[in-house]
Amino acid sequence: MNASPDILNRFGNRVRKLRKAQGYSQESFAAECGLDRTYMGGIERGERNLALRNLERIAQALKISLSELLKGL
Amino acid sequence: MNASPDILNRFGNRVRKLRKAQGYSQESFAAECGLDRTYMGGIERGERNLALRNLERIAQALKISLSELLKGL
Repeated sequence: MNASPDILNRFGNRVRKLRKAQGYSQESFAAECGLDRTYMGGIERGERNLALRNLERIAQALKISLSELLKGL
Repeated sequence: MNASPDILNRFGNRVRKLRKAQGYSQESFAAECGLDRTYMGGIERGERNLALRNLERIAQALKISLSELLKGL
């Protein structure tokens, strides 16, 4: 049923794309989200099965909706 | 920064609404998602900070995208 690659990889690529489009370094974006830089690296590499509260923090940092954050995944 | 109520409550209400709109009981829907019935109850009550892999299972059971699942939240 899953599209490939895995949802975590697809999400990580989505975050990286949106983060770069807004001109953030990984480090400055992690700080904006209130997340650890190494954790953010893990997200972008598709290693983190992150949950709703952290998804919301990322959406808020990007000033987009949760729905937009997950668009196309 | 968070809208109220909490994202977990808003998500729980969203799942309940979508699940009922498709005619599922909570029990049959949990089975369709491959999740425990009590866990599904916790989701709908806003008690579970669920992560991407389980969000994807719910979206797949509803035959909608992740983006649609989180629409309006």
